[in-house]
Amino acid sequence: MTADNKIKRIPENEMRSIFQQILIKHGMRHGKAEKCAGIFTLNSLEGVYSHGVNRFPRFVKYIDEGYINPDAAPTLIHRAGTIEQWQGNLGPGPLNAEFAAERAMELAKENGIGLVTLANTNHWMRGGTYGWQAARKGYVFIGWANTCVNMPAWGGKDARIGNNPFVIAVPHDPEAVVLDFAMTQFSYGKMEAFSSDGQRLPFPGGFNTKGELTDDPSEILETMRPVPIGYWKGAGLSILLDILAATLSGGLSTHQIGNCEKETSISQVFIAIDIRNLHNFPSIQNTINEILDDLGKSEPAGDGSQVRYPGENVIKTRKSNLENGIPVDRGLWDKILSL
Amino acid sequence: MTADNKIKRIPENEMRSIFQQILIKHGMRHGKAEKCAGIFTLNSLEGVYSHGVNRFPRFVKYIDEGYINPDAAPTLIHRAGTIEQWQGNLGPGPLNAEFAAERAMELAKENGIGLVTLANTNHWMRGGTYGWQAARKGYVFIGWANTCVNMPAWGGKDARIGNNPFVIAVPHDPEAVVLDFAMTQFSYGKMEAFSSDGQRLPFPGGFNTKGELTDDPSEILETMRPVPIGYWKGAGLSILLDILAATLSGGLSTHQIGNCEKETSISQVFIAIDIRNLHNFPSIQNTINEILDDLGKSEPAGDGSQVRYPGENVIKTRKSNLENGIPVDRGLWDKILSL
Repeated sequence: MTADNKIKRIPENEMRSIFQQILIKHGMRHGKAEKCAGIFTLNSLEGVYSHGVNRFPRFVKYIDEGYINPDAAPTLIHRAGTIEQWQGNLGPGPLNAEFAAERAMELAKENGIGLVTLANTNHWMRGGTYGWQAARKGYVFIGWANTCVNMPAWGGKDARIGNNPFVIAVPHDPEAVVLDFAMTQFSYGKMEAFSSDGQRLPFPGGFNTKGELTDDPSEILETMRPVPIGYWKGAGLSILLDILAATLSGGLSTHQIGNCEKETSISQVFIAIDIRNLHNFPSIQNTINEILDDLGKSEPAGDGSQVRYPGENVIKTRKSNLENGIPVDRGLWDKILSL
Repeated sequence: MTADNKIKRIPENEMRSIFQQILIKHGMRHGKAEKCAGIFTLNSLEGVYSHGVNRFPRFVKYIDEGYINPDAAPTLIHRAGTIEQWQGNLGPGPLNAEFAAERAMELAKENGIGLVTLANTNHWMRGGTYGWQAARKGYVFIGWANTCVNMPAWGGKDARIGNNPFVIAVPHDPEAVVLDFAMTQFSYGKMEAFSSDGQRLPFPGGFNTKGELTDDPSEILETMRPVPIGYWKGAGLSILLDILAATLSGGLSTHQIGNCEKETSISQVFIAIDIRNLHNFPSIQNTINEILDDLGKSEPAGDGSQVRYPGENVIKTRKSNLENGIPVDRGLWDKILSL
């Protein structure tokens, strides 16, 4: 999305309606198509185009090719206390995840905290969506997923681990605080965008063929050696999130999911915490306000630099896209209309 | 610890016995002193000297100065389902944390998962200790703490956030898999060691006075602007871990704890998950073995580079230090003997 003439602005309700029609055409039932179209539109509205409108054609393709079963829903395998293990039945990732987050909240309502796992599910698109979902209803949310193999472990050359997304969300008025990040410093999508614009990354994002750290995205796309956040630390976090996702769900690990050409049958974890019965519930909003206010008093590191709290950008982008329409590449939108 | 003649090797049981005598001398009761000496010795034995023997004099000083109450123990403030909120009463951080981890396991045994918080506690030294403690007893462990203010938020110049440690541990035979990391790329202790050796950091670890990323540790020690892991990502994780620690415990946030000269009254979260009642419990060890075996097949990134899983180094260091004694700076050991 570089030149403005390549960009079209699609109103939110138009995007949702078109997504819904396409999903129905490709075999999804009306109610599920409505929900699923809503999530893809919301992700786009809130600025995560890579896991919204930009990813929609691939999602439809996966339905057509049988990797996603449009009508499948999760089934309960096992309950152990306030933990539930569900089978995703290769249903649509966003619908499975929305369901699991909801179920974790129900368990949290009964027990203070609830943990729900999904085995054999599909990509949830934007993990933050389920964080916002829970936080809006008053629950703390902690969740993560494993992925296909797309990054070397620290000290290794060949891809063995995933860029597993990790989400933490906290209820806050008027808008939640939501952190949503993956384990690579820059996503492949972002590196491709910088590379096609002939630009360097703002920070080193991986290794070149000589094994040196580089900020040249084309070199990293060649070696397929993106750097994990914090080097050995993010690589370690990726490994532990994968071990937890696979062992708590009974589903596949990154190693078993394999390469990323057709990523399916992944494992996910959803934890919800009900804060309403905590002894300090009446002061929680104030505590969060004080933390955010203090961050806002930061002295800027340089001209134009600004401290933002996690989720703050989402609010601004949502507002702008609601007013102006969601920016979409014209070619991509034409492709979507032809699906 | 550069030259071998500056290093003394202290047998584990000798270190434990000396620590215990000193703690008793400074007002800690016999049983507590035994446990606390055990944790400081274990941390040293397993290679985390910065939060073991090297930190012991400061711990004793904090007792003498009243920041740590050697006889205090946690008291229950509130229970909400499988969540318990405890008051740390400014007791010794390692003992409070060991207690909270144990209590989280008891709640997990009843309910599948247990969450325990500590308000007004003290530094737990090595967070991984409580991960190992839980994993050895068969529980998954997820825990974190907030800290004093020691790092700027992303885009800011002045310190506003903490390098909050985060721990994930998973039971595994014969040894657990344990991840334990703080939010700064390099600890202040590590940067001081590199600086005094006249060495550069292996990767950029912070900003210089011009606001540029640098691998010169002395420049970073001057600006007090260490870089968070993954830049904006680690800064965001630090903020969310602090919000959760303060709101779930009802204790202080990093902003309220303030500067690091006398860090006390911090907040901590301990989550334990009982995996024994999961439907896939019989296959969990096999799943973890497969993941670790696959990592071990990594092609080395360079000469001598090696892929290790989180916690693997701890096992090797423990074995070596059990055989050869725990390495301690002679000057430091003399100082400890005089306490």
